[in-house]
Amino acid sequence: MSKYDIIVLGSGPGGYVTAIRASQLGFKTAVIEKESLGGVCLNWGCIPTKALLKSAQVFEYLKHAEDYGLKVKDAEHDFDAVVKRSRGVAEGMSNGVKFLMKKNKIDVIEGFGKLKPGKKVDVDGTEYSADHIIIATGARSRELPSLPQDGEKVIGYRKAMTLEKQPKKMIVVGSGAIGVEFAYFYNSMGTEVTIVEYMPKIVPVEDDEVSKQLERSFKKSGIKIMTSAEVTSVDTSGDGVKATVKTKKGEEILEADIVLSAVGIKSNIENIGLEDVGIAVDRDKILVNDYYQTNIPGYYAIGDVTPGQALAHVASAEGILCVEKIAGHHVEALDYGNIPGCTYCSPEIASVGLTEAQAKEQGYDIKVGKFPFSASGKASAGGNKDGFVKVIFDAKYGEWLGCHMIGAGVTDMIAEAVLGRKLETTGHEVLKAVHPHPTMSEAVMEAVADAYDEVIHL
Amino acid sequence: MSKYDIIVLGSGPGGYVTAIRASQLGFKTAVIEKESLGGVCLNWGCIPTKALLKSAQVFEYLKHAEDYGLKVKDAEHDFDAVVKRSRGVAEGMSNGVKFLMKKNKIDVIEGFGKLKPGKKVDVDGTEYSADHIIIATGARSRELPSLPQDGEKVIGYRKAMTLEKQPKKMIVVGSGAIGVEFAYFYNSMGTEVTIVEYMPKIVPVEDDEVSKQLERSFKKSGIKIMTSAEVTSVDTSGDGVKATVKTKKGEEILEADIVLSAVGIKSNIENIGLEDVGIAVDRDKILVNDYYQTNIPGYYAIGDVTPGQALAHVASAEGILCVEKIAGHHVEALDYGNIPGCTYCSPEIASVGLTEAQAKEQGYDIKVGKFPFSASGKASAGGNKDGFVKVIFDAKYGEWLGCHMIGAGVTDMIAEAVLGRKLETTGHEVLKAVHPHPTMSEAVMEAVADAYDEVIHL
Repeated sequence: MSKYDIIVLGSGPGGYVTAIRASQLGFKTAVIEKESLGGVCLNWGCIPTKALLKSAQVFEYLKHAEDYGLKVKDAEHDFDAVVKRSRGVAEGMSNGVKFLMKKNKIDVIEGFGKLKPGKKVDVDGTEYSADHIIIATGARSRELPSLPQDGEKVIGYRKAMTLEKQPKKMIVVGSGAIGVEFAYFYNSMGTEVTIVEYMPKIVPVEDDEVSKQLERSFKKSGIKIMTSAEVTSVDTSGDGVKATVKTKKGEEILEADIVLSAVGIKSNIENIGLEDVGIAVDRDKILVNDYYQTNIPGYYAIGDVTPGQALAHVASAEGILCVEKIAGHHVEALDYGNIPGCTYCSPEIASVGLTEAQAKEQGYDIKVGKFPFSASGKASAGGNKDGFVKVIFDAKYGEWLGCHMIGAGVTDMIAEAVLGRKLETTGHEVLKAVHPHPTMSEAVMEAVADAYDEVIHL
Repeated sequence: MSKYDIIVLGSGPGGYVTAIRASQLGFKTAVIEKESLGGVCLNWGCIPTKALLKSAQVFEYLKHAEDYGLKVKDAEHDFDAVVKRSRGVAEGMSNGVKFLMKKNKIDVIEGFGKLKPGKKVDVDGTEYSADHIIIATGARSRELPSLPQDGEKVIGYRKAMTLEKQPKKMIVVGSGAIGVEFAYFYNSMGTEVTIVEYMPKIVPVEDDEVSKQLERSFKKSGIKIMTSAEVTSVDTSGDGVKATVKTKKGEEILEADIVLSAVGIKSNIENIGLEDVGIAVDRDKILVNDYYQTNIPGYYAIGDVTPGQALAHVASAEGILCVEKIAGHHVEALDYGNIPGCTYCSPEIASVGLTEAQAKEQGYDIKVGKFPFSASGKASAGGNKDGFVKVIFDAKYGEWLGCHMIGAGVTDMIAEAVLGRKLETTGHEVLKAVHPHPTMSEAVMEAVADAYDEVIHL
């Protein structure tokens, strides 16, 4: 029986990153993967969707070339080629992880791992043991009883990125990051897209003003949006799909070729031996402490199977922290209040901290500042005037409670707010950090200035 | 004679921003402008060049549409339309400044202002007085004796952005930000471009590795580069221009339609009355203290006419600080060691703080980290694998000495380093600030990790 210091179950952005950090720290490490190295993120999530979205973005440039003084004839997309490019990027990244595993001398065990008592894992009949076993099995697309996925006409995100044929009409159920990214992508490609969202606004976790801005931008680009609406049943018996949508006004039947169900995720905690070992679970999540220890010594869990935000960067951070703690490092618990979230449709969305509504709910007396990209020189020059940066400060102590961005390239701009908040910056310090001109990032400085009535360009 | 609290001479990004902040602080303010509101930056610099560069960037997408699974026929640019778009953006921004002047109740005095003793300014025969006069007259393209600009075949940046006809061949003399931006733009448009740089490397103020990366990228895109080379004379007598270039190997004659001189700038300090008032000057710059006071009470100077970096964001920051001090605020002197610099060719460049060579020269024991975008998932998905983020830390105290970025979108990413440095962050804090996945900004976190031998994706 092979014995390791650390075995990681799952090789997504939680698992493989954990394994690399463990190896750096001197642990003999193995990672168990049932499918492709890199997990959903690399193979079916973050990465391949960004490749699709890049094609969509470039296609938008082609369609609007004249706006930039350019001329093209017959701008077309080759749907197969777009999908193929995306798969190629995913494959390249997965190979990259393979290389990293080798370089870091991490054993990759292929197969389905099942936890056993006594710090053992069974992988398709072979047993492995370790001093520390870290569960990082991630999550998958959640299925609603009213919307069973048949993988043909009613699909999840996975199928949505490898359709053989571009649908003419698509219904996207759910408008979180995954839903709106696919809605944007397919609409750009020429599919007629309708979003059906159960909550009263799209991207429900975002600040209200961000939701409103995205709704405006999406409607302008031709996407239909139904909020406070629910798909109660689907009929796939005919040529396409007929979805019954319940709204405040009553019921409506929508027809489409494809229904994409993007109503959240479900943790992969079934059949991995949690019960055999006695690991405590609350509903869909494995219970862990600040250092990702489960109730059973030697067993840990990180990533989507734990209660934190189900995001790749959270999983990676948790895994690193988990093994640094095992190595005896002094580690600080992760601040789940300072985790950025990004959505990569166009305009992009990035945010961290409290929304205005949350800040008020929590009883803060707040100062709010907002700077629209329509007033930004760089945004004008780039033709990216949609969107804004919004900041929320605690009026009393100056704490930067939240930062909400929507616009071109904002997913690369939110790190400033994350670092600033981590360093307990005040608005004044952000204001006096000279932001380069002309950049979209000036909007952060200006939004802060607006909160303190010192904005220049409004 | 009209009397103001504050008169600002010049309405560039130094002057107009100063005027707005002055007005916010309750001062009766006027700004004097001889040409167009917004100065060089808005009308002939930062903004219109970014518009040209955006057209170039979109044109590159058109040319490489197949890489993204897209098809176009006959991708062409309409040079006139590209220039017209750029002029339109500049005009829009200048109108924006006009609106801001009105909104902030700032008097705009059109004409050429000349300082008089006794805190007066003469504008084409009319005198105005103020308690405080702020000189913000900016700078223009520097002329070399060996390279006199005739505005036809030997031109400066201003003419370069409004050429009636696209040149077939162009020589760009000087490879600072302005030189390489135009080199990139014209090369993208199909002009045959040769850069002639006096120093041994292009973008000479940047870190050596950044210069090397840009040289590699530019050569790949077909730009010819001559370093340690000098244009000793030009002959414009024939159809085009013949430039004699002296290199280590000897002399060479280059032929072109246009020579663009981009060898730096010259302050606008002539004929504005400095001598009449007795304001002290050192060579090309007006001498000021930390609060931008000249040697003569009541006269101040900010922006390109003073010794700090000749950058729009520096001018704005100086102006704001200057009037806040006049208003009696407690102000902290500007940290000229924490000013970011950006270059908007493709790949973009952004940097702040010391280069590796400077840090060594200054005797620091350093830790250097570097993360190439070729190892970034987002960069792969976006087709932006050129470039890297490089960070330099003081090994002893952990101070973040410098950050150097080259790649897609990095001009919007440098603000994180500026704010982090202002807040005296350590590398560890940057590393533990969770950067969202997948973004280009993760490269900052990874570069820091590399400096401390904790990098994951290398």
